[in-house]
Amino acid sequence: MSKKYKNSLAIFEQLESEVRAYCRSFPTVFTKAKGSKLWDEEGKEYLDFLSGAGALNYGHNNQKMQDALVRYILQDNISHSLDMATEAKRNFLEKFNEVILKPRNLQYKVMFTGPTGTNAVESALKLARKVTGRTNIISFTNGFHGMTLGSLSVTGNAMKRKGAGVPLQNTISVPFDNYFEEDFDTVEYLKQILEDSGSGLDKPAAVILETVQGEGGINAARFHWLKRIEEVCREYNILLIVDDIQAGIGRTGTFFSFEPAGIKPDIVCLSKSLSGYGLPMAITLFKPELDQWKPGEHNGTFRGNNLAFVTAVESLNYWDDDSFEKDIQKKANVVTDFLQRLVKDFPELKGNRQGRGLMQGIKCGAKDLAAKVCQEAFKRGLIMETSGPIDEVFKLFPPLTIEIEELKKGFEIIEQSIDAVVKQQKLITV
Amino acid sequence: MSKKYKNSLAIFEQLESEVRAYCRSFPTVFTKAKGSKLWDEEGKEYLDFLSGAGALNYGHNNQKMQDALVRYILQDNISHSLDMATEAKRNFLEKFNEVILKPRNLQYKVMFTGPTGTNAVESALKLARKVTGRTNIISFTNGFHGMTLGSLSVTGNAMKRKGAGVPLQNTISVPFDNYFEEDFDTVEYLKQILEDSGSGLDKPAAVILETVQGEGGINAARFHWLKRIEEVCREYNILLIVDDIQAGIGRTGTFFSFEPAGIKPDIVCLSKSLSGYGLPMAITLFKPELDQWKPGEHNGTFRGNNLAFVTAVESLNYWDDDSFEKDIQKKANVVTDFLQRLVKDFPELKGNRQGRGLMQGIKCGAKDLAAKVCQEAFKRGLIMETSGPIDEVFKLFPPLTIEIEELKKGFEIIEQSIDAVVKQQKLITV
Amino acid sequence: MSKKYKNSLAIFEQLESEVRAYCRSFPTVFTKAKGSKLWDEEGKEYLDFLSGAGALNYGHNNQKMQDALVRYILQDNISHSLDMATEAKRNFLEKFNEVILKPRNLQYKVMFTGPTGTNAVESALKLARKVTGRTNIISFTNGFHGMTLGSLSVTGNAMKRKGAGVPLQNTISVPFDNYFEEDFDTVEYLKQILEDSGSGLDKPAAVILETVQGEGGINAARFHWLKRIEEVCREYNILLIVDDIQAGIGRTGTFFSFEPAGIKPDIVCLSKSLSGYGLPMAITLFKPELDQWKPGEHNGTFRGNNLAFVTAVESLNYWDDDSFEKDIQKKANVVTDFLQRLVKDFPELKGNRQGRGLMQGIKCGAKDLAAKVCQEAFKRGLIMETSGPIDEVFKLFPPLTIEIEELKKGFEIIEQSIDAVVKQQKLITV
Amino acid sequence: MSKKYKNSLAIFEQLESEVRAYCRSFPTVFTKAKGSKLWDEEGKEYLDFLSGAGALNYGHNNQKMQDALVRYILQDNISHSLDMATEAKRNFLEKFNEVILKPRNLQYKVMFTGPTGTNAVESALKLARKVTGRTNIISFTNGFHGMTLGSLSVTGNAMKRKGAGVPLQNTISVPFDNYFEEDFDTVEYLKQILEDSGSGLDKPAAVILETVQGEGGINAARFHWLKRIEEVCREYNILLIVDDIQAGIGRTGTFFSFEPAGIKPDIVCLSKSLSGYGLPMAITLFKPELDQWKPGEHNGTFRGNNLAFVTAVESLNYWDDDSFEKDIQKKANVVTDFLQRLVKDFPELKGNRQGRGLMQGIKCGAKDLAAKVCQEAFKRGLIMETSGPIDEVFKLFPPLTIEIEELKKGFEIIEQSIDAVVKQQKLITV
Repeated sequence: MSKKYKNSLAIFEQLESEVRAYCRSFPTVFTKAKGSKLWDEEGKEYLDFLSGAGALNYGHNNQKMQDALVRYILQDNISHSLDMATEAKRNFLEKFNEVILKPRNLQYKVMFTGPTGTNAVESALKLARKVTGRTNIISFTNGFHGMTLGSLSVTGNAMKRKGAGVPLQNTISVPFDNYFEEDFDTVEYLKQILEDSGSGLDKPAAVILETVQGEGGINAARFHWLKRIEEVCREYNILLIVDDIQAGIGRTGTFFSFEPAGIKPDIVCLSKSLSGYGLPMAITLFKPELDQWKPGEHNGTFRGNNLAFVTAVESLNYWDDDSFEKDIQKKANVVTDFLQRLVKDFPELKGNRQGRGLMQGIKCGAKDLAAKVCQEAFKRGLIMETSGPIDEVFKLFPPLTIEIEELKKGFEIIEQSIDAVVKQQKLITV
Repeated sequence: MSKKYKNSLAIFEQLESEVRAYCRSFPTVFTKAKGSKLWDEEGKEYLDFLSGAGALNYGHNNQKMQDALVRYILQDNISHSLDMATEAKRNFLEKFNEVILKPRNLQYKVMFTGPTGTNAVESALKLARKVTGRTNIISFTNGFHGMTLGSLSVTGNAMKRKGAGVPLQNTISVPFDNYFEEDFDTVEYLKQILEDSGSGLDKPAAVILETVQGEGGINAARFHWLKRIEEVCREYNILLIVDDIQAGIGRTGTFFSFEPAGIKPDIVCLSKSLSGYGLPMAITLFKPELDQWKPGEHNGTFRGNNLAFVTAVESLNYWDDDSFEKDIQKKANVVTDFLQRLVKDFPELKGNRQGRGLMQGIKCGAKDLAAKVCQEAFKRGLIMETSGPIDEVFKLFPPLTIEIEELKKGFEIIEQSIDAVVKQQKLITV
Repeated sequence: MSKKYKNSLAIFEQLESEVRAYCRSFPTVFTKAKGSKLWDEEGKEYLDFLSGAGALNYGHNNQKMQDALVRYILQDNISHSLDMATEAKRNFLEKFNEVILKPRNLQYKVMFTGPTGTNAVESALKLARKVTGRTNIISFTNGFHGMTLGSLSVTGNAMKRKGAGVPLQNTISVPFDNYFEEDFDTVEYLKQILEDSGSGLDKPAAVILETVQGEGGINAARFHWLKRIEEVCREYNILLIVDDIQAGIGRTGTFFSFEPAGIKPDIVCLSKSLSGYGLPMAITLFKPELDQWKPGEHNGTFRGNNLAFVTAVESLNYWDDDSFEKDIQKKANVVTDFLQRLVKDFPELKGNRQGRGLMQGIKCGAKDLAAKVCQEAFKRGLIMETSGPIDEVFKLFPPLTIEIEELKKGFEIIEQSIDAVVKQQKLITV
Repeated sequence: MSKKYKNSLAIFEQLESEVRAYCRSFPTVFTKAKGSKLWDEEGKEYLDFLSGAGALNYGHNNQKMQDALVRYILQDNISHSLDMATEAKRNFLEKFNEVILKPRNLQYKVMFTGPTGTNAVESALKLARKVTGRTNIISFTNGFHGMTLGSLSVTGNAMKRKGAGVPLQNTISVPFDNYFEEDFDTVEYLKQILEDSGSGLDKPAAVILETVQGEGGINAARFHWLKRIEEVCREYNILLIVDDIQAGIGRTGTFFSFEPAGIKPDIVCLSKSLSGYGLPMAITLFKPELDQWKPGEHNGTFRGNNLAFVTAVESLNYWDDDSFEKDIQKKANVVTDFLQRLVKDFPELKGNRQGRGLMQGIKCGAKDLAAKVCQEAFKRGLIMETSGPIDEVFKLFPPLTIEIEELKKGFEIIEQSIDAVVKQQKLITV
């Protein structure tokens, strides 16, 4: 290996496409990681409040998963299997059924899609359209569901939509919960345009939503709102798809983010932290009566990423009882308290606490502030990203397994970072 | 883990979606694999002429890659990194540049897309449309490019297209090389409809093609045809996208399948065997002047599958000199000889040899024959699949690293299988 | 001519498509008409409160127009001229400029589209998209703009949309003025989704609206609302299209329906009563800087319906001074008073007066009531139709030239009809 | 009326949109017309070889139709009737049934669409999609079907397609008869892509075609080709739509242009010369089992243009016996002889005779030649237009009722015009 790029980002700048993004916010070369920490090649340590955008809910290189993974590999077990039956896949199906589906009384069929979130969403949209014979899908303002053409069509972000290069079709975006400052009932709005045969809304196959919008600004829908959306779906015979790719797998405190709302979606998309170890894996769950796929009607080369199945099985041990849920909830309360205090202590933020569970953030009323806070935090050894249509939210996304002490260490850095930013702002203003 | 499903496919039938496919053709539970062989849980051995549909060109659990992979994991190196810079990613970029791009005088930028072939294709289509400002894409009869909405729109297969549940738009399919039995020049046809302002063909952003169609029937375009397609693209200022996901990474005898045709596509999609070990990974390559992406305009959680980067770097050692290419070519000749003999020895097949390199097969004129041959082969311990719009081709897809002896073992099984099928047919006919 | 169908509707039932509609509501064969009256072949007289759905604002067979028309025909003047220059067309352009455009300080170019409203709308949509380079069009709930594919895409009615047989694309329907019972500001809603880069609304080429929705329920937008919509269009650089096909040509009291709102649309569509005599004619008006058409880029065989130009010129004499406007307004007040009284006198209607000018109606809260009132009215010699997504409005659409006595005759019939319907309802309920 | 524009085109240039086209080729103001002649306001006489682009097959101001029309108007008969039943409409239905449908053994239902060709086509496409539940329509290279969004999608011309401002969807254009110089069977091509489930062709609702392409270059399909297209439609259960708007109503020698091919389309579109007098009128005919419209599912204000019904009835007298057909055929032969001689006498044209009946022309191999011939002809008092994707054809389109002497007068002018153009060309070349 040539040494000329050692300690440098030059090869990325020279060879990697301009589309690269995270490496611009965190301009260093990472080499190692464990639990809630990363180190770069110069040995600098970082606390991780990003968690692979939700793909590392159990932290980096979780020891038990690592052990299982290495053991599996060394035994020359199956690595890649298309959608053939393997022992690792069977173990996953059994464990997922025992620990997740059965206890929640969810009779879902499991579809192994291509191992990315967007593929799970594309499968869901295809199935909903196929089963209902309708083409239209309702999505919500500031929803995010992926970058392939079908998923992009239900994604709100204008810059990303424009990247399609073609008009995005067969979808309509309606206001999410709390979209309006004034007290306007967005479920009533949806009902009215569904009911009114002159509204111009073509009867949809499905509604797709995130219970907490991860990319769109950490907007948490109220449980009551979710329940009413489900009722509207039932009343008008529309399928309800929950994209639980970012908010699921414990991020909000329960395995599925929709559990406390008491709803049972028709279709659920999972990915990101599903493998537990950051390995590519995705599934789409749906009610058995919707399983009208023909064999091979949706396929993909990497549906059988057995290394991911192995770590996924290990990760599901976290869900054997409710101790993990309780632990997340405890940490979530600590985060909530901290953020509420921040909003009060730093009126300059014009801040608003958003989200729930370990998926919270502060929406800043002042322009560019959130991005600056993240920049300052990175300098101080904390990795944290922004969210929202104009990056107006800074988003606390620690591993669910983070230690309380690490959490508090992160808080300190955030507070220092805000302090620094606020002081700079004052200097500029004066 | 519950034992009740031990030695059984029951949980798959109960819980996995009807969309599952390969496990129906090869109904057993696989546990181990090495090189060109797999074993199921009863210890039965199988020779692999499928190679993960092209994702296992270097065989199963390649020892050098395995060693590198386990070492990397045990050192707590970065597993998942979104698109942040990591040492493993840098190593890949450097090695890929040194061993693949530079020696071939290809100045491509590298885009790390979501780790699936379809995501690489979606990226390519988006970029072509964005850069040209045009929406239409030309694809070819029996092309296959993936299952997400954009890729599906350029895929020929009717059953898979129907799965979309919406009309597929902004694409047009034109005849591939040798599409007509009579001697009709399909490049001239394309030129004529591009030239004729009354043809109803909206000027396209790009042409997308596979040099050898893997799913569509192992149809190999002639080099001269490819060269002329490139010329048409240049003449009409249309981008040329080569989807080298299945035919690339050595499958046809060179790293890129288009090398012997002497063309330089504007955009190239790679995936499947790119990681070398069957791990999900994909990249899209394009000429630097096309790199007009905005940061983050296309993104995805698993662009930074570092385990795949590690094995990919190891796999690229195969390409340090031309010995591997020569070895593939030698085996390819053995396959060609075998298939030619088969066609002659078994006139009942009404067979035609298709393809090139280690991507060959026999197109059977008689209905259902190819599928029956594969079925018989499986009984005899050989894994092989069909291809083509009505599964009329059986497709020899061994690892490129297969031993000649293994190859011949496979031939024997194929010959026995054909013999068995032909005899059955005769019994039925008589 | 065969006599066998004399006095009968048989040939229509046998030969005409099931798509026929008005002849089902008014099942007789009409033979003659003059002013505000029609007669059927049995000599029965009908008062016309339908006016050809707005195409006969000057009444039937207006004498001055008839004289001019017959004179023109008998002199062998040009009947059909594609878009060649003719004297009749020149006369129209001159008169329209002098009497309509100049006095209103409107510098519009005139495009002669195919002679139907939907063709004028299609031209407007094409031009807006062409000029802005954007594809999306914003339309409003319960808008109606025509039946060809482009116009249908901006039409709200679900039954008619479904007739397309394909998903309708590149448009989004947003709430019209007063769409919600509660006091929700629909202009603010539009502004918010335009401003929010995460709303999922692709920046539109244009907004299209009717100031009073004729088919959608006689919903009159407030002038202030229209003014604010225009401001939003200016702020976000979006074109404003007013479809004045039904509400224009004096129907609401001014030549253009938007005059009292003080707005200047970028594009205006006119048809229906434009020829004055019920002859097919349509034009699209737009600001000169938008006139970016290439010669022949939109064409059509009947753009030069010279018989229509002749009667149109004659009809424009009504607009030489403001006496006609005043006369319409006077009659409008009479209608308003009558309808307000009706609402009060017949609480069983759960009625609400809608609309303005001679484009008013009563929205009935009770199901099927409006249709029954129209049925009873027809029996009593009055032709009147329903409007609204569930035909919940009966719609008073007399010729603008109707005599006050005729108007009152019509009122009597309406009152009797309501009385009859209400009594029936009571019988059923009791 | 202001006199300032007298004898001038100024108001057109000032006020009419740049989209105007014919008035640029024939820059004068026309005032009168009779039979095959027009006069401009300076009294100059023109022979008409354009016939309103096929809307004036019976010549200008046909005396019998004029008499019937004036009589009807003066009696205050119904002018405009939406789709209510009127005596004039009934007369049309009866006469059309007796004279056209019955003798040809065609059991079609009649749909009165908006009174333009494009509206008839839009209705046909909607119905075909609705009845089959499929969205795709097959059209042919150089087909022309109208300017509204649906019709434009099946039109081949690139400039006109681009005017849409949105990607045109749900259609695919395939090669018309004789599209290729070499002897390639375009019906076989269509069959192959329909048969091949990997071709990327989504099963269509319908095929739409003109038997002779009027705008696309006077390309006449061979009868055998049409017959085979019909067979393909039957075999694959696809509807056959014949757009007979330009080629129908006697233009090619029979009432329907498809009669000599012996086919029975499922749907037929008629307009242009249907009214006989150049008045806007259009109908769509279809087999009774396809009449699945809901009442009002397709509507339009001017479906009841009764003045057109009156002249249409009169025009149908031409079809009472076969004398008119024979007369057209005789003239057609005269035209054919003339054009064949022209091709021989003027090798500089590199000419090819195209078309059949009174729908013939010469395709010129040399650039811009056809347009120059038309220009010279106009100077000499003959109105004639070009056709084809690059205006490479000059097109003889006299009224079917033209006198033989007039026809020969026209030939003389054409010959002189060619002579003049050829001489100019030589001067330039030398």
